[in-house]
Amino acid sequence: MNKLIAEGKTKQLFTTEDENVIRVHYTNHTTALNGKREEDINEKGSLNNRISSLIFTYLAKNGVETCFLEKLSENEQLDKKLKMIPLEVVVRNFASGSFQRKFNTEYLAPLANPVQEFFMKSDELDDPFMNNDQIKALSIVNDEQIKIMHDMALKINDLLKDLFSKANIMLVDFKVEFGIDSDGKIVLGDEISPDSCRLVDKTTKKSLDKDVFRKNLGNLVDGYKTVLSRLETEAK
Amino acid sequence: MNKLIAEGKTKQLFTTEDENVIRVHYTNHTTALNGKREEDINEKGSLNNRISSLIFTYLAKNGVETCFLEKLSENEQLDKKLKMIPLEVVVRNFASGSFQRKFNTEYLAPLANPVQEFFMKSDELDDPFMNNDQIKALSIVNDEQIKIMHDMALKINDLLKDLFSKANIMLVDFKVEFGIDSDGKIVLGDEISPDSCRLVDKTTKKSLDKDVFRKNLGNLVDGYKTVLSRLETEAK
Ligand SMILES: Nc1ncnc2c1ncn2[C@@H]1O[C@H](COP(=O)(O)OP(=O)(O)O)[C@@H](O)[C@H]1O
Ligand SMILES: Nc1ncnc2c1ncn2[C@@H]1O[C@H](COP(=O)(O)OP(=O)(O)O)[C@@H](O)[C@H]1O
Ligand SMILES: [Mg+2]
Ligand SMILES: [Mg+2]
Repeated sequence: MNKLIAEGKTKQLFTTEDENVIRVHYTNHTTALNGKREEDINEKGSLNNRISSLIFTYLAKNGVETCFLEKLSENEQLDKKLKMIPLEVVVRNFASGSFQRKFNTEYLAPLANPVQEFFMKSDELDDPFMNNDQIKALSIVNDEQIKIMHDMALKINDLLKDLFSKANIMLVDFKVEFGIDSDGKIVLGDEISPDSCRLVDKTTKKSLDKDVFRKNLGNLVDGYKTVLSRLETEAK
Repeated sequence: MNKLIAEGKTKQLFTTEDENVIRVHYTNHTTALNGKREEDINEKGSLNNRISSLIFTYLAKNGVETCFLEKLSENEQLDKKLKMIPLEVVVRNFASGSFQRKFNTEYLAPLANPVQEFFMKSDELDDPFMNNDQIKALSIVNDEQIKIMHDMALKINDLLKDLFSKANIMLVDFKVEFGIDSDGKIVLGDEISPDSCRLVDKTTKKSLDKDVFRKNLGNLVDGYKTVLSRLETEAK
């Protein structure tokens, strides 16, 4: 019997026969403004499942430990079950979103160094931005774990910049989540998809990600399809 | 001729005969909510001048490089002229203010480690909270300078905790500003006073700082006088 064990804004998690493995179902649910705006968008779930499977496979091939095991069906994959660390780790290469608003910089201004930001994953507290001292004081993780996530996020950034660049796409920023596997190791969890990345076509400068929904620029599915087909070409 | 060269929310800076020295006049001006609420409070300027002079003298005696040269009069002191670094460096020992609101912790909950926070000093941007990557990306200071300020702020915290503890006062948190002197060295600038610290009487748990004004609890001058007289006793 496969039981639903968790349901978030875009994914449902089910048990499997193996207690260390979950079945993840990608829904068409789409949210913005921390869940205040929501909509179901046809095909989004299957596109993200395919894109995230492809990206996690690429990262694993390049030495990043991830939760991904295999793609099961259009909307489903098997993942290692992790004890999630309640932080969202953002890496930025160009100014956009909250960074751009906060510091009043130009949209897509290049950043002198990749900027990492940690946010507490808490809908009630509105995902507050945190520095390392705060993370330690609130006992979310310790110094060593912060360092591991920091280094992994930087490595993921280097690998993704490379992959997207070949697909003629600028990696503006992305968000990842980490968790602890049954061996106690910190592993990349959750997903990497146009829901959690800002991706801009290098030639046309058009957004190929959830910004299309956030900014009401049309149907995001076209961009997601472009991302998938270009990545599939590169992955060959 | 002594010219006014800068005027902030609580202090006026004047030139002196020595181009590396300024005369700082402490006014009675009192602000909250980033300047949105303001009032003149009798005696506040002279109390802060005396308290900050005493504290900077104590810190210098204990190996912290500061801008303080000498107290000139009730409301005035002579300081080294610094090129200010546009950051406010906050150190917290107990939860209060924005930390408490952001993370919904209890007022005065003890923190497992001193928490340092950097804020960009920018009234227009509403003093945004920054992490080290952002500070570097926006070229405010470099890695080495961040480390120097970090270590100085920790040392200042240790020294102040000690001083206030002897005066039966909890050092909840404080804000400092750093600048670069004519030798290119990073030096403690600005002031340390009940305007920029949260100080709570260990016995009565009453605020002896600007929170009295922020929270409309009466006239802040009584608390400032208590702080001064207790520090004067300790300094003897
Ligand atoms: N491999 C994993 N093991 C356990 N939990 C996971 C894994 N990957 C993601 N999760 C968690 O699954 C939940 C559902 O995902 P999602 O719908 O994206 O939720 P959210 O609304 O928090 O973004 C989230 O809490 C996420 O952190
Ligand atoms: N030693 C110093 N040399 C040069 N500038 C200083 C020094 N100490 C403080 N300042 C600056 O003097 C200005 C006036 O101080 P203040 O009234 O506290 O201003 P603010 O409104 O920015 O808090 C501030 O910009 C402060 O950073
Ligand atoms: Mg999610
Ligand atoms: Mg000031």
